[in-house]
Amino acid sequence: MTVVELKEVGLDDPLPSWRPSGAKSAILDLVDAVTAAGSPDFVPPGSRIAVFDHDGTLWAERPLPFQAFFAQHRLAAVAGREVTLRDRQPYQAFVESDYEVIASFGKREVTEFILAIHAGMTTEEFNRAASAWLRNARHPELGRRFVDCVYQPQLELLEHLRANHFKTFIVSCGGLRFIRAFADVVYGIPPEQVIGSSERSRVELQEGRPVVRGLPEMGSFDDRDEKVVNIDLHIGLRPTLAFGNSDGDLRMLQYATDGDGCRLALLLHHDDAEREFAYDRDFRLSPLDQAMKLADARGWPVVSMMRDWTKIFRDENKGEPLGNPLFSSTRAG
Amino acid sequence: MTVVELKEVGLDDPLPSWRPSGAKSAILDLVDAVTAAGSPDFVPPGSRIAVFDHDGTLWAERPLPFQAFFAQHRLAAVAGREVTLRDRQPYQAFVESDYEVIASFGKREVTEFILAIHAGMTTEEFNRAASAWLRNARHPELGRRFVDCVYQPQLELLEHLRANHFKTFIVSCGGLRFIRAFADVVYGIPPEQVIGSSERSRVELQEGRPVVRGLPEMGSFDDRDEKVVNIDLHIGLRPTLAFGNSDGDLRMLQYATDGDGCRLALLLHHDDAEREFAYDRDFRLSPLDQAMKLADARGWPVVSMMRDWTKIFRDENKGEPLGNPLFSSTRAG
Repeated sequence: MTVVELKEVGLDDPLPSWRPSGAKSAILDLVDAVTAAGSPDFVPPGSRIAVFDHDGTLWAERPLPFQAFFAQHRLAAVAGREVTLRDRQPYQAFVESDYEVIASFGKREVTEFILAIHAGMTTEEFNRAASAWLRNARHPELGRRFVDCVYQPQLELLEHLRANHFKTFIVSCGGLRFIRAFADVVYGIPPEQVIGSSERSRVELQEGRPVVRGLPEMGSFDDRDEKVVNIDLHIGLRPTLAFGNSDGDLRMLQYATDGDGCRLALLLHHDDAEREFAYDRDFRLSPLDQAMKLADARGWPVVSMMRDWTKIFRDENKGEPLGNPLFSSTRAG
Repeated sequence: MTVVELKEVGLDDPLPSWRPSGAKSAILDLVDAVTAAGSPDFVPPGSRIAVFDHDGTLWAERPLPFQAFFAQHRLAAVAGREVTLRDRQPYQAFVESDYEVIASFGKREVTEFILAIHAGMTTEEFNRAASAWLRNARHPELGRRFVDCVYQPQLELLEHLRANHFKTFIVSCGGLRFIRAFADVVYGIPPEQVIGSSERSRVELQEGRPVVRGLPEMGSFDDRDEKVVNIDLHIGLRPTLAFGNSDGDLRMLQYATDGDGCRLALLLHHDDAEREFAYDRDFRLSPLDQAMKLADARGWPVVSMMRDWTKIFRDENKGEPLGNPLFSSTRAG
């Protein structure tokens, strides 16, 4: 039994929920190559950057990215401001919980509407509201809380990367404030390593103390090319590893692999209708089509949830504290 | 001799270039309070955020913030594009090296002009050009390289904070790409912990490979309120410690101190005409006036360079490699 086989099947397997596959080997090989002292592909620790899409890559995203359910929940709380939302699409579909109609709108339109629902809250208020909701909110079909729809194999991968001094980032089309409300506790990813779509915001004085309040206007729509622009703005380095699951991630995967040295892009394919969902180009809100063709042409590993993962979701974990601890110690707003 | 006295004057002093002072005690006390297990002011490591202004706080800024000298150097390289710059202010003053005239323009106007000079470069091209320039470029009056105009006491403070599991960030009105070209090597601050003013940018394909290219248009002018907006966007947490030297930092200092628990804002006062420069409200480009009044009202420590620092600049360090190592391993652009 060779060392590689031991790594993949033995007791020391850092990715126990990953079946032996080309994708798993590619991951383990990359980590070996960039960390081995004297390797021609050695990358200094500070430059070992791994970026992960969020919806559909680290947790599920059907029937809709989960922030849409939080936004729907918040509609009631913003009744006084609904008059400005009522004229916008897809307001009616949100009120009627018509997920299919919502998904038929473009990703930008839905993201914009969701951010508009959240407008008016300070960062601290948003974090409190999102944490409280996440604590109990359940997926409409999967029979578990949204925060338990996180993929166990990806938690192992994040951990393996960090154990090898990679810095792990989320680069999501979803709202960055929403993800920051649980990323530290659930993924071990601190707020400053979460990049996402964001509303414009401004500083206001609340009883003389500055708070940051969201405005009903998109600041950055973190999808496609904009993911690369934001990686450049927030991180400033070309990632060594990028993991996505849709055409929105295509440019980010390309950006990561088009540098020198050992680099890796991976695509997650949702092909497990029994344990999760099966879809790709037919999910109009966020299709996987062009990226699949490029993965094929470039030899990027495509991870089959059905074949490559022994386990889909993490164990249900009801006791963990959600929300970032620092927020609870700020009195202002 | 008490433990505190030992810390301040003994062999174990983590801030040897700081004379005993209210500022020094406040720093040491804050670090003790937030790190002591069981302390009512304990802050978990992930939430120990320290933010530092850059020009005038971590290195000198007279007669002009140093990026202005790099921009002036670049004017020659962008001769072909000068036709669009020539109509703008303060073009003529840059051509004539008239620092006083440049400093008489507003900070926003000067920052915008500097970013416009740099437009058209990819992130990697910019890093190469800035690193090459920084390697030898010298301050016109201080008789040392710009990168050696970094303050030794601040290097000790950054190190002391990190040794106590603070994450140290730069939040500068200067261009974030410029600071990222040396912050890792000089301050130990990685690119993703540098926040600053930025141009808009876009993704382009260069020989089929995505690169990020700067546009001649301001994306974010990271000053005053915008510093707080960007701390919220890039970090997502309210800092525990903030250090600045001008009215542009006022809101950031206020934001840091206006949370619960033990927090600290500090102001650096340039009052040492002999070893550096002496100025405050009279430096029109970036005055210190309102912030000084607020420091007085709130009891924020004001650090006197003349009285509180035994040493101003770090030792000259000609051998260190500038530029981020990852950039050198990217072939694209």
